[in-house]
Amino acid sequence: MTWVPGAAGSPYGVHNLPYGVFRHGGRPDRIGVRIGDLLLDLDGAEAAGLVLAGGALRTATLNAFLALGRPQWSAVRARVTELLTDPAHRAAVEPLLVPLQEVELALPFQVGDYVDFYSSEAHATNVGRMFRPDEAPLPPNWKHLPIGYHGRGGTVVVSGTPVTRPSGQRATPAGPVFGPSTRLDIEAEVGFVVGTPSALGTPVPVDSFADHVFGVVLVNDWSARDLQAWEYRPLGPFLAKSFATSVSPWVVPLDALADAWLPAPEQDPPVLDYLRDIPHLGLDLRLAVDWNGTVVSRPPFAGMYWTPAQQLAHLTVNGAVVRTGDLYASGTVSGPTREETGSFLELTWGGAEPVKLDGGERTFLEDGDTVTISATAPGPDGVTVGLGEVCGTIVAAGPPPR
Amino acid sequence: MTWVPGAAGSPYGVHNLPYGVFRHGGRPDRIGVRIGDLLLDLDGAEAAGLVLAGGALRTATLNAFLALGRPQWSAVRARVTELLTDPAHRAAVEPLLVPLQEVELALPFQVGDYVDFYSSEAHATNVGRMFRPDEAPLPPNWKHLPIGYHGRGGTVVVSGTPVTRPSGQRATPAGPVFGPSTRLDIEAEVGFVVGTPSALGTPVPVDSFADHVFGVVLVNDWSARDLQAWEYRPLGPFLAKSFATSVSPWVVPLDALADAWLPAPEQDPPVLDYLRDIPHLGLDLRLAVDWNGTVVSRPPFAGMYWTPAQQLAHLTVNGAVVRTGDLYASGTVSGPTREETGSFLELTWGGAEPVKLDGGERTFLEDGDTVTISATAPGPDGVTVGLGEVCGTIVAAGPPPR
Repeated sequence: MTWVPGAAGSPYGVHNLPYGVFRHGGRPDRIGVRIGDLLLDLDGAEAAGLVLAGGALRTATLNAFLALGRPQWSAVRARVTELLTDPAHRAAVEPLLVPLQEVELALPFQVGDYVDFYSSEAHATNVGRMFRPDEAPLPPNWKHLPIGYHGRGGTVVVSGTPVTRPSGQRATPAGPVFGPSTRLDIEAEVGFVVGTPSALGTPVPVDSFADHVFGVVLVNDWSARDLQAWEYRPLGPFLAKSFATSVSPWVVPLDALADAWLPAPEQDPPVLDYLRDIPHLGLDLRLAVDWNGTVVSRPPFAGMYWTPAQQLAHLTVNGAVVRTGDLYASGTVSGPTREETGSFLELTWGGAEPVKLDGGERTFLEDGDTVTISATAPGPDGVTVGLGEVCGTIVAAGPPPR
Repeated sequence: MTWVPGAAGSPYGVHNLPYGVFRHGGRPDRIGVRIGDLLLDLDGAEAAGLVLAGGALRTATLNAFLALGRPQWSAVRARVTELLTDPAHRAAVEPLLVPLQEVELALPFQVGDYVDFYSSEAHATNVGRMFRPDEAPLPPNWKHLPIGYHGRGGTVVVSGTPVTRPSGQRATPAGPVFGPSTRLDIEAEVGFVVGTPSALGTPVPVDSFADHVFGVVLVNDWSARDLQAWEYRPLGPFLAKSFATSVSPWVVPLDALADAWLPAPEQDPPVLDYLRDIPHLGLDLRLAVDWNGTVVSRPPFAGMYWTPAQQLAHLTVNGAVVRTGDLYASGTVSGPTREETGSFLELTWGGAEPVKLDGGERTFLEDGDTVTISATAPGPDGVTVGLGEVCGTIVAAGPPPR
């Protein structure tokens, strides 16, 4: 039981303890851990000798801490828990607590390689129907491997960063034209943050997931559907995605999600050996997509066909390295019903079936729209684990380059 | 005229001066500039006050120097030229020259985002014919935009790094199987190294290329064609490419290539405004692909349909940032004849038409094979600019993950 006022029973109690990077009082960015509606200044805590991490908590980004590896992650978590629960520490720790409303949250880690998967069967089926109506909805490889592709690490931004509407080429009957995207969309996803690196040429086995992955963020992989439809053959999405990918400011440790694992959907046909995870588990994360104040969808992460352990095993089976700070996202999280879809492409069926919003009808994103994706997971003893939120507001496109 | 013995008239005279990172005498990695068959230790030169770059030359990677921007790049180049040509500096500079055969060359810069284009018309046509025989060889978007996709920055390695044969899934009539790639290939490319970053949301105009790009490396984008054919639809190549991408150890500054620009192929249909570069110039880089000691191909970079300035303008037109250390590659450089192709897929027409090599016939790469891609460009006064080489030897696949 934590002594921090208001934290006990909250989704951000001592069972959670997500890490982030904050700005406060004009000082340089510092690492903190959330407890209730406060954060514990870990830079100050390590400076005071209250927690020891070899200086890794005294930097402006989580990367050095992420690189320490699971034994150290566990040790720091145990010590932080002790500081926040044992009243004997209250006098020393309380001055290091900062109200969340006083801070600005920064990108929590420097992103290395960013990979985006495509692991919801409902999403892949929906997109296949819309983008490739003359073919089977699921590509022939889809149930044999977790399809993924590389995105742009350099345009991963923290929640709250305004998203400028991208311009680019889209097809018209008269040929391609250049201009601001007219079909700007979201993708509600869950991202996995790599801590411990792997070695070049050495795959990460499917059962070594927790040795490498530190924790979870929420991801909004903003997508310009008109740009995507024109550019993506044959080498995949490029500018339709690379203008911005937003992540939540809190990295929730896997340790906080121990009660959220549950059997993942059965895989038929059976997968190849290197993808066989026993037990085959997914995470019961319950997402909510809020569009200008209205929750329009509740995508269930529990139904994802490919698990995060399988994704990591696949990503490295060719010998590719993962590095500290690498991020891989699940792909759009969509359940089988319209109210569980993780994109507006699916929610409005390509714009053909608008949703009611703000007293009118809406399809894709308009300038000024704000989308907030949040999530919770089951925690210990009936309490909830909060994953925070990732939000962004659309800003009008800038002028053409010249 | 340089006073450095043996350097005058060489492809690495004072007209070239490529930058790299070297290891020597058990000391930490240092920055050097090549002159003839020696390198000038720029760490030592800045330490001695012979060249001033605010400490950017006293680090273990080129990134800080790349971040300085064009005026500083020019100032350092002018000063290094002075040091290597004015005999008055010889006594101070000569002790800082290190024979190349004594050093090990390291990855010259930390790679941020890695993008690979697809800008040779001959290559795209050849691949289209082989991968999509039922469709037009060039996709409908190909002449409207420089198609590209993101690769894996974390597995960019320096020339000389052994390349382990990747394992992965390939299709068979009985379904996908897992194992070492049986169609391992090269892609001979030219890479552009970003120095000056751009701002999120602000495209880089097509005429600002030289403000952002510092220089050029040679790239071998190793490719597993069997993995690629099975995985690439609908989101593009992933594991078929991400196991290793080799780059040359020397970054040749754009300043060294001033005499290598020439008109690029005329573009018909006309391109959209943001891609219109006037003058429309390519680089006359002459590549050579050596396979186990035999030059099997001479790909001409001058014939590339899309120019590096157009590629950068396209890459950022949606507001995506470029950062210091970002690398974008041209895509496979292939000319119209078989002897000008930049991949063995094309050279052997998908393996159907083997080439004679080592007294036998060969199609794709075998374990132990070594491929070396080199290039030269025309320099001032009839002298040649050497771009060095990127080489790699194939090592047998490791065991499966478990």
